[in-house]
Amino acid sequence: MGLLGRVGGSAALFQAAGLLGVTAMPVQAAPKRLTPVPGKGPKVLILGAGISGLTAAYELGLAGYRCTILEASHRPGGRNLTVRHGDFIDELGNPQYCRFDDKPHLYLNCGPARIPASHTGLMHYCRELGVALQLFSNDNRNCYTQDDAAFGGKPVRLAEYQADIRGFMGELMAKSLASAQHLDAPFDEADLGQLQEFVRLYGDLGADLKYRGTERAGLVSGGFVDPEMLKKPNRFSDLMRSHYWAGALHFAEAADQAPAMMTPVGGMDRVVQGFLKHTADKIRLKAQVQKVWLDEQGVEVSYLHGGQQKVERADYCLNCIPTHIMAGIDNNFPADYRQVLGAVQRGKLFKIGFQAKERFWEKEGIYSGISWTNQDITQIWYPEHGTFEQKGILLGAYSWDPTIADRFAAMTPDQRLKAALAQGSKVHPDYAQYMENGVTVCWQRMNHMLGCSSYWPEALLADGFKRLQAPAGRHYMVGDQISFHPGWQEGAIRSAWHALADIERREGQRAREAA
Amino acid sequence: MGLLGRVGGSAALFQAAGLLGVTAMPVQAAPKRLTPVPGKGPKVLILGAGISGLTAAYELGLAGYRCTILEASHRPGGRNLTVRHGDFIDELGNPQYCRFDDKPHLYLNCGPARIPASHTGLMHYCRELGVALQLFSNDNRNCYTQDDAAFGGKPVRLAEYQADIRGFMGELMAKSLASAQHLDAPFDEADLGQLQEFVRLYGDLGADLKYRGTERAGLVSGGFVDPEMLKKPNRFSDLMRSHYWAGALHFAEAADQAPAMMTPVGGMDRVVQGFLKHTADKIRLKAQVQKVWLDEQGVEVSYLHGGQQKVERADYCLNCIPTHIMAGIDNNFPADYRQVLGAVQRGKLFKIGFQAKERFWEKEGIYSGISWTNQDITQIWYPEHGTFEQKGILLGAYSWDPTIADRFAAMTPDQRLKAALAQGSKVHPDYAQYMENGVTVCWQRMNHMLGCSSYWPEALLADGFKRLQAPAGRHYMVGDQISFHPGWQEGAIRSAWHALADIERREGQRAREAA
Repeated sequence: MGLLGRVGGSAALFQAAGLLGVTAMPVQAAPKRLTPVPGKGPKVLILGAGISGLTAAYELGLAGYRCTILEASHRPGGRNLTVRHGDFIDELGNPQYCRFDDKPHLYLNCGPARIPASHTGLMHYCRELGVALQLFSNDNRNCYTQDDAAFGGKPVRLAEYQADIRGFMGELMAKSLASAQHLDAPFDEADLGQLQEFVRLYGDLGADLKYRGTERAGLVSGGFVDPEMLKKPNRFSDLMRSHYWAGALHFAEAADQAPAMMTPVGGMDRVVQGFLKHTADKIRLKAQVQKVWLDEQGVEVSYLHGGQQKVERADYCLNCIPTHIMAGIDNNFPADYRQVLGAVQRGKLFKIGFQAKERFWEKEGIYSGISWTNQDITQIWYPEHGTFEQKGILLGAYSWDPTIADRFAAMTPDQRLKAALAQGSKVHPDYAQYMENGVTVCWQRMNHMLGCSSYWPEALLADGFKRLQAPAGRHYMVGDQISFHPGWQEGAIRSAWHALADIERREGQRAREAA
Repeated sequence: MGLLGRVGGSAALFQAAGLLGVTAMPVQAAPKRLTPVPGKGPKVLILGAGISGLTAAYELGLAGYRCTILEASHRPGGRNLTVRHGDFIDELGNPQYCRFDDKPHLYLNCGPARIPASHTGLMHYCRELGVALQLFSNDNRNCYTQDDAAFGGKPVRLAEYQADIRGFMGELMAKSLASAQHLDAPFDEADLGQLQEFVRLYGDLGADLKYRGTERAGLVSGGFVDPEMLKKPNRFSDLMRSHYWAGALHFAEAADQAPAMMTPVGGMDRVVQGFLKHTADKIRLKAQVQKVWLDEQGVEVSYLHGGQQKVERADYCLNCIPTHIMAGIDNNFPADYRQVLGAVQRGKLFKIGFQAKERFWEKEGIYSGISWTNQDITQIWYPEHGTFEQKGILLGAYSWDPTIADRFAAMTPDQRLKAALAQGSKVHPDYAQYMENGVTVCWQRMNHMLGCSSYWPEALLADGFKRLQAPAGRHYMVGDQISFHPGWQEGAIRSAWHALADIERREGQRAREAA
């Protein structure tokens, strides 16, 4: 038993956990490249030019497979959508053009916007395709939390909230330690002293283990040529009345959201452009699939293109079409496969971007990061790039709550922008005066997409996931929708790799049988 | 009394604290510009071309004062020192040349390296002088903590350590909440439920408020095409045996170190270069002050320059020479002023930089941030810039512990590099094979500096700070050394502003008296 011995049930639990858990973060290097196929390679038809389709086309191309991508939209990239000056936003019923000024730093990532280092597939392609990265900030303590129910509705700096809650928790833990009945033997005075010191440091408590405020919260004044003056701690009741503790406070602890996060310099679609350098000639845009038919030799796909009905045959088909859309397209998939396909649900996600005439947030000491509010807009993101430029693009709303997304989906773009301005004004009182040229993207209404990430209810995940992950004949459903990371580009990449590995296995088997 | 009521002594404390502490972070905008002086303005002699001297020269120049900066070293910038290919490191007894390859991304910030947004003076100059900024990462959860006394000496990811310690603390708090005697009335079932939910989210505990591991720690495997497999929690005794809890764990909570941190694109000396665009013609390099003499009309300074004794007179003198060096230079300062000047102590700070042939840390999922070890090297910093380049500059040691600094100061540069390689190898086993072209900077031996930040023991701060902050005649001691932020450029800037404001006050008074 170690220096500190048992502390309540925890130590028992840690002991029960067994051996020392020193494990490296699983860092998967480059994908195993496909074995090159000799001569005129097999033909693969890819439905959808999102990240999974582009990944597949890129890898298949390197190995000598023949590929065609049919993409229903006017653009490749799927939900990897970065809008700039003049771009068309193809939302059904709400078509919009982006009116941002024509400057390199004025863009909005409407879909994915950040990359954690643990997404090693995407990091691999960024490296290989020359996509420069910069740091992204999920957790800027100078940003605000705002809740109508707390602090009189006024925004509070995250640093202040977090420092106070740590102070309170530190006191609570110190109290707990002081009561011997909480501590199982063996636990001696030295152990207790060490744990108390930890708690003191944790909460920045006084020597008496009481919290009286801390410089961590930011100062009222001083600290440079005058002595520092600490803020008074907030009332604990106010801290707990705020919604912030119930989720957002812990947001940047999540494996996918913890620092250091990264993002491509110049916009997330740099990833798409990287793939396009190698795959652009394989893509047929505005090609809308109408029928997917499996047979023993392969797959036949009928689609509309330029007003004409066309048919394409291939040895394999990688199908990236959203499951709920594919379920409505004519097919002869096996019944069990069709059943799962039709049962996968869809998330809803909604973003609003504004061009700000002036980077007013910099005057408030904010240079990147996220403010949180319990209003529908949920988040305000400040750009991590373009510091000190005159203008900037601010994410003025980002919600993944289906109820909120439905509310915004029912509004016109103008109504959405007005709502976002009114709500944002509770975080930044002068907000509205800085804003111009807003865009709104409601993924559940975006053409050819009609939703965001797949959502697998637990029972379906247990029963149906492996079925849909496996091929039906020579047809594979792929994309982040067929991964444990829906809504992330890494899920799309890994799903593509998963299907490609199976195609390679089959091609190897065929070659051995032919030999 | 609020929704949650009292929780032990904490709520009482929060109540005692009085009113709602909703205060904005004090964001001081631009400095008040000096009132322009008419005609041939007063002459100001500035001793030292570090950040405080450059700030003063810049502001005085804008207002029409005549300025000369005498700088003892061969370069301006003071401790704002960024070394690149070919640069000379003027350490007494250990002169070195920087042998990094000649590439823009291969540099080492030997002094200041990061900027918090609350340092509004420096941010103001970055904006005004065109210094582009990027995010800097103090807290990358993919970095390691390594301690010979814990985890068998093996490095553990910060994410893993932090997730486990939160799990344990969450359990401890839950236990405390379950014991009613810790909770003062009024505290009802609903309050308790809310607080328990908070604790559950905090530690990512199970519904039974037990910790069994979390994805926050990083996964053993899965999560993309296979279900995720959680790491087993480490033993609590191992977590507490590590030095990490006793400081470094809380490092990025500090106001000056909390996210979002920033750094100039291209190196911290971009700040110096920004000032030099406006002040370079005022600087006399290699001018070593030998005597500072005050009289009623102003200040007379004798100095050595090009082998010759020279004398310069001025209406005012801003003296940025380190206090402990100035105390040894001939002067006629008042006795009380001299006494404080001689009593200020000096910190010791030590950095080692290596050029890495390969950015091996990226293969481990590290793209910026700091690893911690209880060995003398203390920290390893991975560059936040140059991602995916072949080479990179790694900070292989950074200590501000005077005992450690003394140990390194006594070694030759070669011995220091060998020690840093041996110690770094405990964090990254293959470390040494990647390293080439190291440089070492021991500030206590750096010419004309002989130490780092000022250190004011508490009694001296109470008695002597205001005395040294006030002028002696027309002579002002300035620099970060005369601030509550020694070791930070913001301290230097604010100290310069403080002296300039007093000069302006005196000039205004003189003008009114003359009128």
